[in-house]
Amino acid sequence: MLIIGELINTSRKVIREAVEAKDAAYIQQIAKAQEAAGANYLDVNCGNLVGQETEVMKWLVDTIQEVTDMPLCIDSPDEGALRVGLALLKPGYQPMINSISAEEKRFQAILPLIKEFKAKVVALCIEDSGMPKTAEDRLRIADHLVQALEAQGVVQDDIYLDPLIKPLSTNDKHGQEVLDAIRIIRQKYPAIHFTCGLSNISYGLPNRAVLNRLFVVQTMVMGMDGYILNPTDKAMMGMVHASQALLGHDKYCAKYLKAHRKGLYENS
Amino acid sequence: MLIIGELINTSRKVIREAVEAKDAAYIQQIAKAQEAAGANYLDVNCGNLVGQETEVMKWLVDTIQEVTDMPLCIDSPDEGALRVGLALLKPGYQPMINSISAEEKRFQAILPLIKEFKAKVVALCIEDSGMPKTAEDRLRIADHLVQALEAQGVVQDDIYLDPLIKPLSTNDKHGQEVLDAIRIIRQKYPAIHFTCGLSNISYGLPNRAVLNRLFVVQTMVMGMDGYILNPTDKAMMGMVHASQALLGHDKYCAKYLKAHRKGLYENS
Repeated sequence: MLIIGELINTSRKVIREAVEAKDAAYIQQIAKAQEAAGANYLDVNCGNLVGQETEVMKWLVDTIQEVTDMPLCIDSPDEGALRVGLALLKPGYQPMINSISAEEKRFQAILPLIKEFKAKVVALCIEDSGMPKTAEDRLRIADHLVQALEAQGVVQDDIYLDPLIKPLSTNDKHGQEVLDAIRIIRQKYPAIHFTCGLSNISYGLPNRAVLNRLFVVQTMVMGMDGYILNPTDKAMMGMVHASQALLGHDKYCAKYLKAHRKGLYENS
Repeated sequence: MLIIGELINTSRKVIREAVEAKDAAYIQQIAKAQEAAGANYLDVNCGNLVGQETEVMKWLVDTIQEVTDMPLCIDSPDEGALRVGLALLKPGYQPMINSISAEEKRFQAILPLIKEFKAKVVALCIEDSGMPKTAEDRLRIADHLVQALEAQGVVQDDIYLDPLIKPLSTNDKHGQEVLDAIRIIRQKYPAIHFTCGLSNISYGLPNRAVLNRLFVVQTMVMGMDGYILNPTDKAMMGMVHASQALLGHDKYCAKYLKAHRKGLYENS
């Protein structure tokens, strides 16, 4: 299970304000909190600051690395910003790039970075003709992505496929299509990994946190093994640990019991 | 989705005391509360009162039927007690028997009741050689049960297979074996139903309610469509409604939205 901490993202107001105020202490506190909560990578995203993205990416990566050796996941639609972030990373781990897609222009722009930095990569199920609708659409795009990346020497173990979650509120089959997609793609490519941002699933519905948490449980049953989420959300991390135990991925339920002793289930 | 309310069971201290005190008002209140909470059947079980079971079953069924027309699920290992309960039921619905199994003696004892009362039946995955260990054990027992029942004219739509949940604390694969069993049995017999008592899964572990709730979410992904549970547990019923919506079984998320308006997710 790979948890990518999502909190350092300038689309969040508190982070944008900290960046504008050059409040390094706040960014560092958020980085440390995600590390303490059990994240495996920290996402760094300032993609909404068009025009200053490269400069902000540099400041964020330097600021975070002052206080932690946590692996970073450099997140941008722009290959220039990705390169700046990747070039600054401390040695000693495999960096992660968020993200490539099956859109031809983006694929060609991001591919050289994966090779140069020997990075893991989040691969979005989006193609030039648009977003996937069905499970079969996602399998077709996954076929294209996995085969094109493998042809370039990227191994399946370094690919984190994002099946692209769309809101349940616009179509009540949007959840089931993703669950089916994970099942059939996992069957065909047992060595690849998955990741996803969850919050789209609940867009436009009440009790969003409940739906987001349950969709973690459901997708994990189908074989999803990575999430971009807020690791300091105790209820969410509780779901992750309990699900892993129930799925037989936690020998002697040791991690579940440890999470219990740390108070992760205090209010449940 | 079929929710069988589990609360009227003399293995629960409050129910045993109400039975001993002939406190009809309490039993009726519990029946009405489960009805109001959305149960589809009410389980009636006094199997632990050996020697007085028949008499207590009669009193319980009469007492419950004074205040509600809810379908009842008559629950006993003893065919005599089952017969007494079944014979008292109001007309107008298909009764439910809990339970038959693949143990030859029990199978032969319960079968005539299913036919006589044209009942739905909970079919436990237990055979004469004991309890199942693996998913394949469960499929083998399910094969036997479904085929033997069909040979006697019981249709798949009336069979509620209980895959038999064992504690995760004694083997960390016990959850996954049940999930796999549901998947492969569902594939082979698309028309049968499932049900289960959940609480075994968490026996011996802390935060039992969390594990029980998540195992509902996980089993539902695999195709389980019935549960014997406490329908007045708001957190549990919240999981059921939210899961159904995420799985695309709730048109326009209408039931989920209704549950939200009724305050089912107040504390989440």
